[in-house]
Amino acid sequence: MRDSNREWVFAERPDGEPDMDSFELHESDVPEPEHGQVLVRVRYLSVDPYMRGRMRDAESYAEPWDVGDAMNGAVVGEVVESESDAYDTGDLVTGNGTWADYTVLDAGDVAPVDPTIADLPAYLGVLGMPGRTAYFGLLEVGEPNPGDTVVVSGAAGAVGSVVGQIAKLNGCRVVGSAGTDEKVEWVTDDLGFDAAINYRDVDDYRAALDDVAPDGVDVYFDNVGGPLTDAVFTKLNLDARVAVCGQIAHYNEEGVPTGPRKLPQLIAPRARVQGLLVSDFAPRFTEATEQLATWVASGDISHRETVVDGLENAPEAFLGLFSGDNIGKQVVGVSE
Amino acid sequence: MRDSNREWVFAERPDGEPDMDSFELHESDVPEPEHGQVLVRVRYLSVDPYMRGRMRDAESYAEPWDVGDAMNGAVVGEVVESESDAYDTGDLVTGNGTWADYTVLDAGDVAPVDPTIADLPAYLGVLGMPGRTAYFGLLEVGEPNPGDTVVVSGAAGAVGSVVGQIAKLNGCRVVGSAGTDEKVEWVTDDLGFDAAINYRDVDDYRAALDDVAPDGVDVYFDNVGGPLTDAVFTKLNLDARVAVCGQIAHYNEEGVPTGPRKLPQLIAPRARVQGLLVSDFAPRFTEATEQLATWVASGDISHRETVVDGLENAPEAFLGLFSGDNIGKQVVGVSE
Repeated sequence: MRDSNREWVFAERPDGEPDMDSFELHESDVPEPEHGQVLVRVRYLSVDPYMRGRMRDAESYAEPWDVGDAMNGAVVGEVVESESDAYDTGDLVTGNGTWADYTVLDAGDVAPVDPTIADLPAYLGVLGMPGRTAYFGLLEVGEPNPGDTVVVSGAAGAVGSVVGQIAKLNGCRVVGSAGTDEKVEWVTDDLGFDAAINYRDVDDYRAALDDVAPDGVDVYFDNVGGPLTDAVFTKLNLDARVAVCGQIAHYNEEGVPTGPRKLPQLIAPRARVQGLLVSDFAPRFTEATEQLATWVASGDISHRETVVDGLENAPEAFLGLFSGDNIGKQVVGVSE
Repeated sequence: MRDSNREWVFAERPDGEPDMDSFELHESDVPEPEHGQVLVRVRYLSVDPYMRGRMRDAESYAEPWDVGDAMNGAVVGEVVESESDAYDTGDLVTGNGTWADYTVLDAGDVAPVDPTIADLPAYLGVLGMPGRTAYFGLLEVGEPNPGDTVVVSGAAGAVGSVVGQIAKLNGCRVVGSAGTDEKVEWVTDDLGFDAAINYRDVDDYRAALDDVAPDGVDVYFDNVGGPLTDAVFTKLNLDARVAVCGQIAHYNEEGVPTGPRKLPQLIAPRARVQGLLVSDFAPRFTEATEQLATWVASGDISHRETVVDGLENAPEAFLGLFSGDNIGKQVVGVSE
């Protein structure tokens, strides 16, 4: 065990595209758990697009970080000191902790991790918040029916890759959009998507969609926004459902982004567009995690994590989300 | 009875703002009803914003007019010749006919009109398609709860004026937007809206809404689009519902209108935005019309029609919809 701790601190609010100036690595003593808490040696920490929202000085669904706050999010690690009856030293757990070598978690907010079901990084992806977001977002907001055409943006991301596979399990035709040929190959060859487009190779998004979604779009699961989304809205079928999970293309824009107006396009198909936050489904998280674990164990759902090694590289891993560096879930490996 | 008929024909597809070039008045013989039909002398005909969509050469929810087609829409009139057992000469009826002195209707598509409940023009407004649109759009898409703040654009229009009153009957705080001081006074003084803004007097829509909807927006019933809608989307409360009924501000725009992107604004409030067409509720039209007639009879719902007299002025009445000439339902008086 190290005798000091390193922890990333939010150093400066970014204006537009964030860079390293927003992060400072602080050295401190290893924290001590109080009654009901556990000290966790972090194995992997999660970097997620929603964290960009926490960098803004505006109330939103996730509390904004104040300058000087420790960066925090989902982590997986090993209990190295326990002041709780619920966990012993050596237990593997997941919860919300800081970007650090060691983090203190309330035992009540921690869930056990079973490494025989999946490797630890999967607990930050398909078996973590992104997997549950895909599960509830697709099934409860997208409401797919067998035979539907489901389009997923960010198809090779932590959420999109799971959305597409659950849609396939529900008998849908699944079309993905991703930003590299490698991602396109992964989702079509390994994940079973019926088709995918590399949006960086596309000039005419509408024409590209006409090729891969000739029968129009019944469900659109949007993680990205931007011109692909604009094109999808011109192809919505009667009673189409759009789950707005993320809009990563717009998170770093300064001011209010503009684009084609979409409300006029909703009337003829009577389409429904709905914002989605996984936290609304918290009472059903166990159901989702169990189902996802079953699918992972059976091989019905494949998953992949992109691991950047070293706590010191956590900001870089976060920034890489906005250039699409990750295939599957982006995590940071903090310790072995 | 006249011995000839006049009928408006769709003469030219407009590009952008329509003008008189799109309309030609043709003279012809009075048509003759066939078996199962009635010949109706038109008393009032309806001009509606949705007709702008029928002028486009594009499939949509309402079939596009071909150049040379008779203009058509809802009418109220008197049966002057009947080839149906269901109606006698002298009966007052409503149905979809042509913009003409005389029009032939299938008896099966016609509904009787009771002038003791309301004057004939009301059967094209509060007791016609606009009233049913308000009823189902607000109750089934907007899903208002007591105490909700409901914002209605086009508040003094045929649909909006009914939406606001039904929302009041459901215990909501109702805020309208309209384009003249006279309209603002009508909806607040006569219809019972809690507040209304004259959007033509407003520079900062967001600030204006902050004044009249200080607790944010739970339901937005949008008939208009444009900058007010943009401002409303910045004020959506948790689980807000947006019913997209019309977007009249954009109907005459050439190309695809642009504006602030709205999808990023839906995530934090988990708002739902849904396109609305009254025809989806056809199996329940009787329920709606009966309820609306009850409310009209009891005085719970007030209504108003703007009448332009003379079949020859029908195009002008239609074009006036886009400059907001009407208060309440715009109709054309064709015969006494």
